[in-house]
Amino acid sequence: MAELTHFDQEGSARMVDVGGKNISERKAVASGWIAMSDLAYEKVKAGTMSKGDVLGIARIAGIMAAKKTSDLIPLCHPLPLSRINIDFSFADDLHRVQICATVGVTGRTGVEMEALTAVSVAALTIYDMCKAVDKAMVIGDIQLQEKMGGKSGVYLRK
Amino acid sequence: MAELTHFDQEGSARMVDVGGKNISERKAVASGWIAMSDLAYEKVKAGTMSKGDVLGIARIAGIMAAKKTSDLIPLCHPLPLSRINIDFSFADDLHRVQICATVGVTGRTGVEMEALTAVSVAALTIYDMCKAVDKAMVIGDIQLQEKMGGKSGVYLRK
Amino acid sequence: MAELTHFDQEGSARMVDVGGKNISERKAVASGWIAMSDLAYEKVKAGTMSKGDVLGIARIAGIMAAKKTSDLIPLCHPLPLSRINIDFSFADDLHRVQICATVGVTGRTGVEMEALTAVSVAALTIYDMCKAVDKAMVIGDIQLQEKMGGKSGVYLRK
Amino acid sequence: MAELTHFDQEGSARMVDVGGKNISERKAVASGWIAMSDLAYEKVKAGTMSKGDVLGIARIAGIMAAKKTSDLIPLCHPLPLSRINIDFSFADDLHRVQICATVGVTGRTGVEMEALTAVSVAALTIYDMCKAVDKAMVIGDIQLQEKMGGKSGVYLRK
Amino acid sequence: MAELTHFDQEGSARMVDVGGKNISERKAVASGWIAMSDLAYEKVKAGTMSKGDVLGIARIAGIMAAKKTSDLIPLCHPLPLSRINIDFSFADDLHRVQICATVGVTGRTGVEMEALTAVSVAALTIYDMCKAVDKAMVIGDIQLQEKMGGKSGVYLRK
Amino acid sequence: MAELTHFDQEGSARMVDVGGKNISERKAVASGWIAMSDLAYEKVKAGTMSKGDVLGIARIAGIMAAKKTSDLIPLCHPLPLSRINIDFSFADDLHRVQICATVGVTGRTGVEMEALTAVSVAALTIYDMCKAVDKAMVIGDIQLQEKMGGKSGVYLRK
Repeated sequence: MAELTHFDQEGSARMVDVGGKNISERKAVASGWIAMSDLAYEKVKAGTMSKGDVLGIARIAGIMAAKKTSDLIPLCHPLPLSRINIDFSFADDLHRVQICATVGVTGRTGVEMEALTAVSVAALTIYDMCKAVDKAMVIGDIQLQEKMGGKSGVYLRK
Repeated sequence: MAELTHFDQEGSARMVDVGGKNISERKAVASGWIAMSDLAYEKVKAGTMSKGDVLGIARIAGIMAAKKTSDLIPLCHPLPLSRINIDFSFADDLHRVQICATVGVTGRTGVEMEALTAVSVAALTIYDMCKAVDKAMVIGDIQLQEKMGGKSGVYLRK
Repeated sequence: MAELTHFDQEGSARMVDVGGKNISERKAVASGWIAMSDLAYEKVKAGTMSKGDVLGIARIAGIMAAKKTSDLIPLCHPLPLSRINIDFSFADDLHRVQICATVGVTGRTGVEMEALTAVSVAALTIYDMCKAVDKAMVIGDIQLQEKMGGKSGVYLRK
Repeated sequence: MAELTHFDQEGSARMVDVGGKNISERKAVASGWIAMSDLAYEKVKAGTMSKGDVLGIARIAGIMAAKKTSDLIPLCHPLPLSRINIDFSFADDLHRVQICATVGVTGRTGVEMEALTAVSVAALTIYDMCKAVDKAMVIGDIQLQEKMGGKSGVYLRK
Repeated sequence: MAELTHFDQEGSARMVDVGGKNISERKAVASGWIAMSDLAYEKVKAGTMSKGDVLGIARIAGIMAAKKTSDLIPLCHPLPLSRINIDFSFADDLHRVQICATVGVTGRTGVEMEALTAVSVAALTIYDMCKAVDKAMVIGDIQLQEKMGGKSGVYLRK
Repeated sequence: MAELTHFDQEGSARMVDVGGKNISERKAVASGWIAMSDLAYEKVKAGTMSKGDVLGIARIAGIMAAKKTSDLIPLCHPLPLSRINIDFSFADDLHRVQICATVGVTGRTGVEMEALTAVSVAALTIYDMCKAVDKAMVIGDIQLQEKMGGKSGVYLRK
């Protein structure tokens, strides 16, 4: 039966041994959104075209955070990431900025956490930059969309 | 009209000047949840009573992340936080672990971002520790509940 | 006679004691430039108006680096910075991007190193983003322009 | 035509994908200088022989900064550096301390940024340690001298 | 004759070149203890069974610190650690908590420093969490127990 | 009765609230040693006089580590340290390098952990720099010597 592999048989946490795993190309895609008021939403959207580029800054913050994942998540392995992309799109009806992060590595373990961390910190950065006009923003649906590479194979969110 | 204060008049980002603000006691409370499968949920819940303490580790990760907020969010001020608490509760019907973080500071600017960061990283840590049994977990409703102190006064989520 | 205050009488390095100094408003302004080829220069300049915003990213990198100064410079004191601004301007005849950083703090010691670090890392980031088109760029004249606050009073570069 | 590879076709920043590149031995050499007053220069020079070792500390700061490069420069890849050397020399006529950093890696991308960062932070550390006697010091000519390894081949500054 | 390899022939520090070394499986085991008063010892021991889990937190702190080793120890190489375990045991007669850390890597240089850092920071964390009841705790016998892999072969403490 | 204040009544860890404490001048002194073989000891001692300055580097590492304490020890408060000194002395009969760190702050909580962390990382750095000639070195007696300031008053080790 599936187990929480971050614990040994006595329940003590550990950074699990990936030394015996093969090096392979791995990729993970994660997504999420931040919903906001009319005013904040319009300002963010406007900023992507002229000045006040909220999303440009959130993208940088998400990329830099992905590189810090093993410093944030206690049992994550440090990994030499080979790529990080963050894309934003707009859902006008819901006043949501949608965030999608793709992370790649050639290594012994996957990069789900790096992709999820990138999405989370990009969302938090948007919050920070818009909180003067809207404190009630909500971040939601942070989740894994896709995972490739490694022994466990492909995961695709249904 | 309310403005995105992180930008100057030409749209360039800046860390806004809080030098003229008064030092006051400030507090922020943020919350969120992570929803998971039956199996993962049972394992997390069991762990809090015996071995395999997922939430104990997530709490530490969230506390440590709150202290890194100004390193993660580009335009956040570094702040000498005076307190951080993270509480978990269980919503059995939804298979959700609810996360609530409270952060305090005696300083010139608020700690919303620190509380939201603590919640986010605690949720990501739970994800990391349970992903061997469930990759489809979803993190949601990360939001500010309460904010006190400073010129803008009290914010309470409706 | 003036001394290198970072050493004690036996020549051992130390983080000097600022505990007895008064808290005051302090500010420092530093500047520098990066010179580049025609092609790189045009691309950077174009990017500030439409897509490919090199300077927007360099600004964020400089701001974040200023916050890391005490982690980079061994004997610097950690300081709760109250403001950071970075401005860029263009010297078309020299193909130089000019960088100017202003940092403020209410504290017991000055922020020259934070301003100089912000300029340096902003310049390095521009280098990184343009190095695919020009490896021969040169960073120069990184220097303090102005310093205010504290016992030593005002410094203005001649 | 050469492009700023850190941006995709829509002008969004990304950490470029190096997953398809070959692992090879790579090296980069960068240099720069810091010019200072008579008094500061004599103190630094004296310190290398007896007590008050400014350059020994600047060397350590530069080495440690090289390891932090991917944390400072937003779109740099994290790399398992295999060597870092920093050398200093004196240009008595110009009152300059010359700084030269050599960085090596066995990896998928080059280490120019690591070498340039090492030089910059070593120079900033010298500034910090001498600023009590000279605030007018200038850091200049930070540039790449040499780059080997990888598909783009050898670069030697003319 | 054996030399301090972290210095070149002129006595300047460097991060030694491991580029020519083979990649191999490497492991290091380090140990140490913290001795404390009756009261503190009983509280720590009790906490491992019910609430107030000092050792669970110290384990996480040690694991996270092992990942930061190259950021703490100036001339350490950054390494993609493949495993970290920390075990605690009790020496009732001496009122000591014994700490043992095992670190593994597939790389070009060993992980002694990572194992020793994990033990040290785990011990410091226990100190921090118990200092309200005992300020006189002592940390001792931090030492390497075992080292495997690499050209220098196996080291086993006698 | 004395309690482990880092836990609440339910045994959950927290960063305790120091918001209500007075700001006062605080100081802590910690000590420890590292014992080594004849050969290593002679090399370290020689290095302090000519080239190969192990202790100069260990001092910098200890100072920088003190500034990272709140990033290493999970429940430590971030503090704007006002001074850090590290002194070394030699115990020839025991082949020990003795390490003493003094840390000061004007703040709401003490700096014991910063002083102990400085000593620990200075000792680990000496180990790192000498391990090519001696892998059997032992670090011991890391302990608090003195603590001043704050409500709990003066602590002096007997």
